[in-house]
Amino acid sequence: MAPKGLAILIGAGPNTGAGIARILASPSHGNLAVALLARRPEPLHQLTASLRASTPGSTIEAFPADTTPASLERAFSAIASHAALANLPLELAIYSVKHSSKKPFLEETHADFTDSLTTYVGGAFAFAQLAVRRFLRDHGEQPLGAPGSPPNAKKGTLVFTGTLGALRCSAQFAAYGAGRAGVRQLAQSLARELSPLGIHVVHTIANGGIRDEMGEGREDGEEEKKAVAEGKRMSAESVGRAYLWLHEQGVDLWTHELDLRPAQEKF
Amino acid sequence: MAPKGLAILIGAGPNTGAGIARILASPSHGNLAVALLARRPEPLHQLTASLRASTPGSTIEAFPADTTPASLERAFSAIASHAALANLPLELAIYSVKHSSKKPFLEETHADFTDSLTTYVGGAFAFAQLAVRRFLRDHGEQPLGAPGSPPNAKKGTLVFTGTLGALRCSAQFAAYGAGRAGVRQLAQSLARELSPLGIHVVHTIANGGIRDEMGEGREDGEEEKKAVAEGKRMSAESVGRAYLWLHEQGVDLWTHELDLRPAQEKF
Amino acid sequence: MAPKGLAILIGAGPNTGAGIARILASPSHGNLAVALLARRPEPLHQLTASLRASTPGSTIEAFPADTTPASLERAFSAIASHAALANLPLELAIYSVKHSSKKPFLEETHADFTDSLTTYVGGAFAFAQLAVRRFLRDHGEQPLGAPGSPPNAKKGTLVFTGTLGALRCSAQFAAYGAGRAGVRQLAQSLARELSPLGIHVVHTIANGGIRDEMGEGREDGEEEKKAVAEGKRMSAESVGRAYLWLHEQGVDLWTHELDLRPAQEKF
Amino acid sequence: MAPKGLAILIGAGPNTGAGIARILASPSHGNLAVALLARRPEPLHQLTASLRASTPGSTIEAFPADTTPASLERAFSAIASHAALANLPLELAIYSVKHSSKKPFLEETHADFTDSLTTYVGGAFAFAQLAVRRFLRDHGEQPLGAPGSPPNAKKGTLVFTGTLGALRCSAQFAAYGAGRAGVRQLAQSLARELSPLGIHVVHTIANGGIRDEMGEGREDGEEEKKAVAEGKRMSAESVGRAYLWLHEQGVDLWTHELDLRPAQEKF
Repeated sequence: MAPKGLAILIGAGPNTGAGIARILASPSHGNLAVALLARRPEPLHQLTASLRASTPGSTIEAFPADTTPASLERAFSAIASHAALANLPLELAIYSVKHSSKKPFLEETHADFTDSLTTYVGGAFAFAQLAVRRFLRDHGEQPLGAPGSPPNAKKGTLVFTGTLGALRCSAQFAAYGAGRAGVRQLAQSLARELSPLGIHVVHTIANGGIRDEMGEGREDGEEEKKAVAEGKRMSAESVGRAYLWLHEQGVDLWTHELDLRPAQEKF
Repeated sequence: MAPKGLAILIGAGPNTGAGIARILASPSHGNLAVALLARRPEPLHQLTASLRASTPGSTIEAFPADTTPASLERAFSAIASHAALANLPLELAIYSVKHSSKKPFLEETHADFTDSLTTYVGGAFAFAQLAVRRFLRDHGEQPLGAPGSPPNAKKGTLVFTGTLGALRCSAQFAAYGAGRAGVRQLAQSLARELSPLGIHVVHTIANGGIRDEMGEGREDGEEEKKAVAEGKRMSAESVGRAYLWLHEQGVDLWTHELDLRPAQEKF
Repeated sequence: MAPKGLAILIGAGPNTGAGIARILASPSHGNLAVALLARRPEPLHQLTASLRASTPGSTIEAFPADTTPASLERAFSAIASHAALANLPLELAIYSVKHSSKKPFLEETHADFTDSLTTYVGGAFAFAQLAVRRFLRDHGEQPLGAPGSPPNAKKGTLVFTGTLGALRCSAQFAAYGAGRAGVRQLAQSLARELSPLGIHVVHTIANGGIRDEMGEGREDGEEEKKAVAEGKRMSAESVGRAYLWLHEQGVDLWTHELDLRPAQEKF
Repeated sequence: MAPKGLAILIGAGPNTGAGIARILASPSHGNLAVALLARRPEPLHQLTASLRASTPGSTIEAFPADTTPASLERAFSAIASHAALANLPLELAIYSVKHSSKKPFLEETHADFTDSLTTYVGGAFAFAQLAVRRFLRDHGEQPLGAPGSPPNAKKGTLVFTGTLGALRCSAQFAAYGAGRAGVRQLAQSLARELSPLGIHVVHTIANGGIRDEMGEGREDGEEEKKAVAEGKRMSAESVGRAYLWLHEQGVDLWTHELDLRPAQEKF
């Protein structure tokens, strides 16, 4: 069964990213061709190979990229001209980049602090802009309800994976919190601006650990499966199913902010 | 196909409640037997008849009830001993009671203000307590991860339908806001208390109009379908699908608060 | 020096209420005549005597009352006809009623839960209505900026003492949280409705212990003074100074929500 | 009367900054020597001259600086070695830098977006770090309650002037909102980290226009005075009084987030 569209995911690590990708790419779930972006080529290619092996019938391609505009533009261009992906409309774009740092305030440097903002929040901006341009190119620029536009004319879904740090910021987490809150406000502004065009913008708030307990060759697989089954840890595939569900929301009802936590997580 | 469980919904009006019930009861969606509760018997029985007619294969039963403890207890007893529902485990309980009032502060009376709290927040409390007792009776009382307990031992989902008024309260809406915020905090406290037991508690924040454009004999059906298709109004069935999705979340990942709005709603 | 106006404080206990009253009544601070309301006459009269003794030149009168409308109306009538208070305009009204309860959800009763709402949230409503009527009677009903109205025409300040429970509600605190959140939304609605009339409505969020370390005959006085001096506990007089400051805010700049915590309180 | 300490204010414009500075410097209010920082030397020197003229007995000095670390370090060094300021302990540091921009998302550039973050959020970081180092140098590094430390050992107050954009972000305001929210989270992290040391960190949320209606030679002075007197606009001096009040809060009770709005502002 040919994929019915394209998903682009940046932040393709061995846990959250891997689980999301598997669900999106699986013919029995998302049935989307998936373009995976991550900074380091070697682990990205390994992950891609592993995901392909465990997901028969999937289309998964790797595009090493960091969050600079130049690198993201190259990746989006490569995706646009890639044989297996070229004619598929972009349906879902996910910004799921790792962002963490803890440091006493007086030990933090201005260079590291602003680098963190540029890399993480600036990266979210650049990624979002490229994704939105592709949504409009692939699905048209008409606002919802414009004369002649079709019903339920959702153009795509843009998801930012965030954390509780976007809302509450602990001691020694200034750079982390500023970045998380920055992306949350970017998402909120975009939701208000792009929603009438039919572009669905979501910010998620993951609260608790996420593990891809289905990942290949995990030594801690059994332990992780147990933690997931007992509600102590989120399964990365469950995150993927949540994102897919968000994408399946139509223009008449959509969710802008989604909290995600395992049942046993304190909050 | 026999229903796989039971849902109880209080607030069975012709829009939100009707749409939710249709989705939950439909064999191709929730496939749950649905017990509908509403204050006025006549419209409730009409609605039940209409839902049965439009949902082949469904099990839908009516139990007139208001939000007083005595009335709710009678309804839960009647449900427990109803032939078509008796052996089904409770899966989903939804508190979706109408709550609105606008009045200049100096024209409001203490009696009306506190009645509103007792009816709406007190009703949520009473409904929640009955639902939780049935979850525990039907699914056991063991906490998640207790020795010998099965994996993914979710016991059920309790949803409170709220609105933006729970977060931001306009002039002349004191009773409305106090009630909405009260139920939100009730939901938050229950989520923290019951989550480790495997009971999933959700508070939704509907922002915008909800219409059951599939309802029988709607004169404004075409207009409403258009409003839904253009992202101006929420379809009540979409709300039902969202609630069903919440119920399908497993113990490893669940959502406590869900905002719902049509794409063209300002926020 | 004759008091320049009247303050009414309900919730006159030995800590928060006492410290607030002392600051408001002190000729060198608020210089307001203070009407103290509390449920139990005996401790109220003792507190009043102690406050008078420690605050030379103050006018402090006791009016036993609970939060029912009838009781509050009697107290407001008695205040209006009391010789020492009769000709003073109401400047500041403070709802600082104790509200706490912790109970496992399934052990809570509907009667207790709704009583708590009626007493605490309904009481806030009734107190606010009486206070607002007196503000309007004493200071006129014209909105700000109406032709002929004087500049800076603030009519008075209505403060609700709240807690973090209004925002975040822990397990087993459903009644507490619902009440606290209910009053917060009441305050928010009133702020939006009454602000254009020149009535300043404030909701405070006290986070941490409050002690009146200046209270008479405290056995733990030294220990409490130390806790206050080290930023571990709030001084009740500091709360009073904060409330006085809120009252001194003019129509051009006022604060609707004020968090208060000692420096060493975790949050 | 010699100033009792030092205040440093960055963002010394003709409205908010001017009003705050006048109150802080006035011998009858803050009685603090004030170091004013702003990007453009010419207007800064004019403002300084005007403030000195209208505030007899004040000590106000100008230090042109932008929000880069190098520029801020030069300014803090110049302050430390300035004859009139050298021996004064830093009491209050205020980050009140202008930050606004509105642009359709697809017209925004990555360079402008990240410059905005670096300048505004990075600037807040650099300013905060220099201010905190001076607080510790001038007031000692002991935490509150350490053996031998004096009671009420507040070391100083660090205020960030923010806006509602830190909480709710409208369409076309992505850069603005990301910056405002970033500084808010920085402030929140610092509050949690530095509070036990006796450093008071505050984030204010100004909602509505602020005018220095006392400013010299204002052509619109009368109109502005009327807007302030009717509760349509905040007086910059009222903002200054609020900041001074925050600084006067002792370790037993302080406020982390303060909303400020004129009585007639919708919210």
